[in-house]
Formats: sequence, C-alpha cells, structure tokens
Amino acid sequence: MNSPMLQTNESQDSRLRARAARVIPGGMWGHQRAEALPKGYPQFFASGKGARVTDVDGREYIDFMCAWGPIILGHQHEGVEAAAAAQASAGNCLNGPTEHAVILAERLVDTVAHADWALLQKNGSDAMTTCITTARAATGRRKILIAKGAYHGAVPWCSPSLVGVTSEDRAHLLHFTFNDVDSLVAAVADAGDDLAAIVVSAFRHDLGIPQELPTEAFAHAVRKHCDDSGAVMVLDDVRAGFRLNMAGSWEGTGVRPDLTAFSKAIANGHALSAVTGSEWLRDAANSVFVTGSFWYAGAQMAAGVATLDELVRIDGPALMARAGHRLRNGLDEQAARHGFALNQSGPVAMPLVQFAGDDPKASLGEAFCGEALRRGVYLHHRHNMFLSTAHTDAEIDCALEATEDAFAALARNRPKDQGDAA
Amino acid sequence: MNSPMLQTNESQDSRLRARAARVIPGGMWGHQRAEALPKGYPQFFASGKGARVTDVDGREYIDFMCAWGPIILGHQHEGVEAAAAAQASAGNCLNGPTEHAVILAERLVDTVAHADWALLQKNGSDAMTTCITTARAATGRRKILIAKGAYHGAVPWCSPSLVGVTSEDRAHLLHFTFNDVDSLVAAVADAGDDLAAIVVSAFRHDLGIPQELPTEAFAHAVRKHCDDSGAVMVLDDVRAGFRLNMAGSWEGTGVRPDLTAFSKAIANGHALSAVTGSEWLRDAANSVFVTGSFWYAGAQMAAGVATLDELVRIDGPALMARAGHRLRNGLDEQAARHGFALNQSGPVAMPLVQFAGDDPKASLGEAFCGEALRRGVYLHHRHNMFLSTAHTDAEIDCALEATEDAFAALARNRPKDQGDAA
Repeated sequence: MNSPMLQTNESQDSRLRARAARVIPGGMWGHQRAEALPKGYPQFFASGKGARVTDVDGREYIDFMCAWGPIILGHQHEGVEAAAAAQASAGNCLNGPTEHAVILAERLVDTVAHADWALLQKNGSDAMTTCITTARAATGRRKILIAKGAYHGAVPWCSPSLVGVTSEDRAHLLHFTFNDVDSLVAAVADAGDDLAAIVVSAFRHDLGIPQELPTEAFAHAVRKHCDDSGAVMVLDDVRAGFRLNMAGSWEGTGVRPDLTAFSKAIANGHALSAVTGSEWLRDAANSVFVTGSFWYAGAQMAAGVATLDELVRIDGPALMARAGHRLRNGLDEQAARHGFALNQSGPVAMPLVQFAGDDPKASLGEAFCGEALRRGVYLHHRHNMFLSTAHTDAEIDCALEATEDAFAALARNRPKDQGDAA
Repeated sequence: MNSPMLQTNESQDSRLRARAARVIPGGMWGHQRAEALPKGYPQFFASGKGARVTDVDGREYIDFMCAWGPIILGHQHEGVEAAAAAQASAGNCLNGPTEHAVILAERLVDTVAHADWALLQKNGSDAMTTCITTARAATGRRKILIAKGAYHGAVPWCSPSLVGVTSEDRAHLLHFTFNDVDSLVAAVADAGDDLAAIVVSAFRHDLGIPQELPTEAFAHAVRKHCDDSGAVMVLDDVRAGFRLNMAGSWEGTGVRPDLTAFSKAIANGHALSAVTGSEWLRDAANSVFVTGSFWYAGAQMAAGVATLDELVRIDGPALMARAGHRLRNGLDEQAARHGFALNQSGPVAMPLVQFAGDDPKASLGEAFCGEALRRGVYLHHRHNMFLSTAHTDAEIDCALEATEDAFAALARNRPKDQGDAA
C-alpha cells in the first residue's frame, strides 16, 4: 500500500477541485461531494481493483464504501468486465435491446423470490418512481406510505431536500415510523380507501442514526395491511439488494413484497436498475409508460447477468457476512482496548460504525475516519458502509492493522470530554 | 449487405420475443418496444458499426434511427470507444468522480454558448427534472410553461401517459402552442407572479405531425417573457443537442436559454445527460439535491469528452446536414417519379418523412418503411429519424438505391384511394 499523504495545494486532487469550482456548481454535486466527508478525503479517483481504490494522487485505500454500494464483487471483477466488454465491442446502444435484456429478466425472475417479471432502467430513482406509478395504475388509488427519514431517491416526490420541490410533489405521501406497527396502522387509517402502496426499505439505514433490521412483527404488519386493503407492498432494495440475500432482502422476515426496486450492486458498478413484480401487477406494469434513451443498452445488462450468476455461484452474501463479522469483531476489540465503545449497527455487510457518546456531528467518528484514511483505509463516519466479496480475510486483517493505529492515534489526541466508553 | 428476410417463427428474434413475453410485461417496455413499428421490424439487435446495425438474426440495415438519437458519430466510433475503454479498464464507478467529470464540464462550458457551469447525470428525464427543480429554487415560484404535446421525459410530471400519474404531479404545468406567441402570452398571464420557467424544445418534434423549427418571433418572445418576469428559460435539447449546432440548438435564433438539458448524443451512446446553466443560476443549482448511484462514473464522461471533441474537429453538424440534404433530395425525387408526394419536415439531420394524403395511422408510410426494411434500410414512419456523421455520401446513395425499389414496390401495391400526389 502506498503511504497516503494529506492533501496539499500541489496535489492533483486540489488542482482538479480548483478547476471544478469554476465549471460545476459548488465544485461537485450529490452524494459523492467530498465536502460532507472528513477532512483530507479525496474528491477525485483514478482506479479500483478488488477491495482497493486509488485516488488521482496515487494514494491507495482499502475501500469500505464500494462506490457507495455498486461494487459488490470488488472493483474491476474480471468476469463481469469481460461480459460487458464482449457486448460493448459489438454494440451497446442500438435500435432495440439485445438478448441480454431477456436473459437478465429471466435471471431476476429465477433469483428474486417474489418476481414473476422485470423491467430494466438506469437509476434507483427510476425504479422507485416506476414502482409508485405501477402501484397507482394497479389500484386506481393515490396515497403512498413511506417511513419518516427514509431515503428513496433524489427526485421531487421523494428527495431528502425540499429545495425546488412543491408541496404538490408530495401531496399523497403519508408517513410512519420504521418498525413501529402502531404508526403504520395510523398511517393506513389516514389513507382510508385511497391507499396505493406501502413502501419499505430493506432495513432502516437513515443517515447518522443507528441502523435497524425490520422486526418480524413490523414486516408481517406491512404485508397484512397491503393484503387487507389491496394496496401494493413495495420493497426499496436499491441500496441493499443482493448483498444480504439473493432472493430479496426481506426474505428472512417471511414476508415477500409485490414490487421491488433494485439498482446499485445489480451489475457491479455498471449503470442499471430494475423493478421486479408479482404476477398480479404485470398488466399494470405494462400499462405505464416508462423509458429512457439508454435503458436498452446491452453491455450493462450483460454485466448484470454476470454479476448475479457470480454472486449465486460463490454465495456472495455469505462471503460478505463473513468479512463483515471479521471487521465488526476486530473493530470492537480494538476500540475496547483503546478505551472507546462502538455502536455498530445494521447487517454486518453494510455496517454503520458509531462511537458511543459521540456528538450529533459524529466528531469522534470523523476524527477516527481521518486517521484511518491516512493509514490507507477508506471508511465513512455517518453513512452505512459496504463490503464486497473482494474483502477477503487478508484484506480485512490488513485494514484492521491500520485501524489499530488509528484508534491509538485517536486515544492520544482524545479530548477529555468525548467518547468515553460507558 | 445481407439479404434481409421476413421474421419467421424459427428466427432468433421470434424466440427471444417468446421468452421476453414470459418475464417482461408486454414483452418489452418504452420507446424501443417493436409493437409500434411496422410489421417485420426486429425487436432485438446484436451489433452496430458506422451507419449500420445488425439484428439478432444477422440482418444488416443502414440505420436512420441511430438508437433513437444517441449515436451521432456512427456506431462503435473508435475514438470514443477507446476513450471510454481507457477509463473503464482502470475503474468506472468509484468513491468519487474521475478527472473526466471536470474535463467534460469544461468542454460543455467551452462549447455551449450560454453555459457557465454543468451538472452530469444519466437520463434526459434526470436533466429535465433538475432544470425544473433549479428554476423553482432560483425563483421561489412554481409554474412551468410547456408546449402542448411536447415530449420532455417519462416521469410523472412530464410523461406523455397519465396512467399511474396524479393530477398533483402536473398541478403547476401551464400550456402554450409551440411557435404561437399569442398562446405563450396567455399562458404567461395565467401564471401571474408564480412563473418559474418557460420550457421549449429545440424544435417541434411531436410524434406523427409535421415538425416545425422555432420562428424568430416565437424565440424572442420566449426570451422576453422570461426576462420581463425573472423566470428561467429552459431549452430541452435532449433529443437535438449537438446534431444541429454545437453551441446549442437555438443558437441560430439569436436567443440563448438560461438552462439547457442535454442527453442522447452527448457521449455517442454511452449513458449520460447534462444540465448546463448560466451564471445567475449557479447558486440555485448548488442548492438543489440531485444525485444517482452511477452519475459519477468516469468511462461515460470520457466518452462524452471524446464525442464533443470529435464533433467539433470534423464539424459534425455540417456533415450531418450534408447527409440529410442528400437523403431528403433523393427521397423527394424518387417519390415524385413513382407518383407520390412527400411532406419532409424538421432539420435535415433529424428528418420526419410523411406521405402527403396519408391516413392518421400513416399506413402508407408504414408500408414504405416495411418495403425499405426488407431492402436493408431502417426508417421510421411517424417519429423523426436521426443521421450521424457516419452517413457518408456512399451510405446515403446505398440507402437511396434501396428506397428506389421500395417506392417501386409501393407503387405496384398502391391502394387506389391512398397517397396521390396532390
């Protein structure tokens, strides 16, 4: 691993930031804007391989963000890249889809437990919007129930920001609290006979608060209220899909959705999203008009087929759980030894690591991530992280060597009033 | 050119359609669904090269749809593919953007006349939605004026279909008629002090009706009403961008927009869209939250830089206009010789070819396209077509040889009451 250095004005990253500031509002947009990351985090990247990414100044990191989710078999997975390249070298964007559209839809129907059909798109927001439109078309109703604080995309009806959004864009949203059956019952009652859909995330992964897996009671209540009212149960599996369970992230709850939105990891970084649906929604899905200029492109779909096949072949979710447990246990042990207590939440393959007693800005977490980054490990202090099947035992152990030093540095510089182990 | 055959049940296309019918609602979705095309058109494609595409049964066509717009330098342009592959072989979807994000934003600012900044996305619908959100953020107002019948994307606020869409999704849309200044003035008056934006297409390219270029009077009226009210002028250049004028499709009118949405041809088939904006909207663009999992991927942006550079280097719009004139003149001459009159409209590089006296379903046009397809030329009877810089004189002449025979066949089979030259 190269020895990472702090940014300097002479770095390529700094030069690119200065150029970006002139031609891009705020220098960068959206969730990959480095402004919200700990100091010293690079804005611009050059390459990735396996569990590692390299920034534009040649600094290599063991990567625990996986491009914020899309990378699930490791960066530049040879089988996936070969499948994409084979189609890309013949043609990608043509006058109609390639055979990969059919093969990928077949794979999704074979793999996802509730799926009888699939539609393919580009963004997670595309897939979630299609779910809502399909639910309304199927039911002839309007109200959509979503969990308070849940992220379902970056378009006006669901954006976490209300800037530039009108009240009408959210007119038919009603809210409940994830895992709170009473709040769900109240929201269902509010919707009356106009309930089109209940939308749930794979688990509660709101920014900066402890993650929660769905309780069985909550999962069954969601299903029951959809069944009782004829509403559509929508699972937003954009972020978690294929990392926890190939059959769908709620498969372990004993509850299956009617529609699922997938994206991020479906093609190991190639731009693709999908909606899968149950048979009773096939006609509704066929009745709505959804399309995009690049939605039929073959190379990304070939990458999707290769990704799903490889994840099934190697039992990807089991490998990522193994890596996640090793990381979680290692971090807990190190933290305790250096006098910190961690609050690690969520599935181990998508961990959120918080310091007990940290302030709302996660200052201690931010300082820890900064120390880890300087030692070649790319973590996040407020967002869930992502493991991939390239996170072998050796890579996890290498990362833990660096975090051991990061905890030691944190302990040396520790403010007296912060982060005591309870 | 291979000798195209009609579809049979034994064709690969038929076999894929049968498989697709089981796992994809309606067998295919959106604008590349072959159902709306003339009989005998293939649903599935295998490859493309230059001005030619090949379907899954090995039938090759001279392509006048260019993947419905994205292909502008011809299929599999070597320079573009090499630029994309260079980044893709290092890494595409990483923890932050690559340097290509900055370079592409710089190119857009250098190339597009009104542009002081750029944001990059995936779909044309993404870009148009961002324009609307940015206009509302900048003005604090809500009303959006759009032309009746204009296509601006496939999401609820602008979808051509109302299935699954609520009235609130369109609550703040007001309509005018393209090129009709009086209707524009009336819509501006209706918006009162709540006018956020006036949205115009590059030209009127509504499905199935003659295309219209913007009149100077209309263009200046749009600009004036935006200036007078402080509203944002949005140019939807998703379909036409970089085919007519590298500086923006309204550059010839003497009017420049405040925001432009680009997509389709920006990266010669690689999935990318962009919003460019004027300086006064920089802060508003920075204030809205727009993002997507794959919006930072480097390979598509590298393809975008290579595409724009090549179009500038070879003066792509001039080449496409040359090809378009050759095609238009050739078709007119042939039609007249065989006793038909054509109504060819729109810019020559994006032609709509209609038969004078045809019925509303364009039955004569459909029959002509079917005859041309059997002779190896892929046309569309109701949607504007697209030329690319790979449409050399030789390719146009080769296509005209086939259409000469198609007109002859059409004349032989001509119903007595249809399509007489006036």
